Amino acid sequence: MSSEAKQIVMRPIGVIRSPHRTPAGTPIQPTYAKDVEGEVVVAAELEPALADIDGFERIWLVYCFDRAGPFRPRVVPYRDNQERGLFATRAPSRPNPLGLSVVRLLSRQGNVLRVRGLDILDGTPLLDIKPYVPEFDAHPDSEAGWLEARREERREADGRFHSSGPGSKR
Amino acid sequence: MSSEAKQIVMRPIGVIRSPHRTPAGTPIQPTYAKDVEGEVVVAAELEPALADIDGFERIWLVYCFDRAGPFRPRVVPYRDNQERGLFATRAPSRPNPLGLSVVRLLSRQGNVLRVRGLDILDGTPLLDIKPYVPEFDAHPDSEAGWLEARREERREADGRFHSSGPGSKR
Repeated sequence: MSSEAKQIVMRPIGVIRSPHRTPAGTPIQPTYAKDVEGEVVVAAELEPALADIDGFERIWLVYCFDRAGPFRPRVVPYRDNQERGLFATRAPSRPNPLGLSVVRLLSRQGNVLRVRGLDILDGTPLLDIKPYVPEFDAHPDSEAGWLEARREERREADGRFHSSGPGSKR
Repeated sequence: MSSEAKQIVMRPIGVIRSPHRTPAGTPIQPTYAKDVEGEVVVAAELEPALADIDGFERIWLVYCFDRAGPFRPRVVPYRDNQERGLFATRAPSRPNPLGLSVVRLLSRQGNVLRVRGLDILDGTPLLDIKPYVPEFDAHPDSEAGWLEARREERREADGRFHSSGPGSKR
């Protein structure tokens, strides 16, 4: 598997502005952050690449969990009380700290997108934006493993996956 | 936006094995690759992180478009005949070459996942695996901008977004 050795260098294309300043209390998924609004500030020189995005009701944000702790192969997820394999969870302490959230696109002003449903920490580096396309992305009946039994449980983070800082003050 | 300056270094966690050897003819989304099977070979040392994934019917693959051409702010997408802003498309020629596909998980043997619905080129470096959770990810009625009018059109790539190579032979 020679491709494993290679490094892939990414650069943020913008930053996410949200009211969530600390991991503790931040909703663990946009589903639980329905009313949380914020902004996606894309680098000004990339504004031409945002053309036509306005017609999409939702967009994917791909971002860097820049305050995540180091990779752990097993974690106790927010909505469970036993360890699960990291790849069977959406916890931030991943080998590559890639986050993925779908948010509702409210409006665009130039290079700034107003969005709703933010479960992302303020200041998070943005790596990509993709349109949400139900034909590709929506599989409402897909079985969700251990999460099936946990639907109504924990909905906010408590800081357990973050390396340091203000989360512990809460 | 100071975070823009910072580089983020990622390393592949595995490789995707598929029958698609050239961009031309590769389905543009898993929706059009329903019967295409292949393997996700995760680095052996990460096998513990795959625990519990077996219960999920679908998984997200986050990968690197390693054969994509350079970033272009506007592209003519596969399913359109006019230019669109890159971020309003799923085209590979992105500022950060991040690909995102949901596939059906058929089985797991140690560090190897058998999957169906592959729209990904053979040898593609894998960056992350996440469980597909309908509660978070499925929004079947979300408006899809310019794609709404294009549902039944082009379903295979023709190599237009790739830097070189065999695509042009087809």
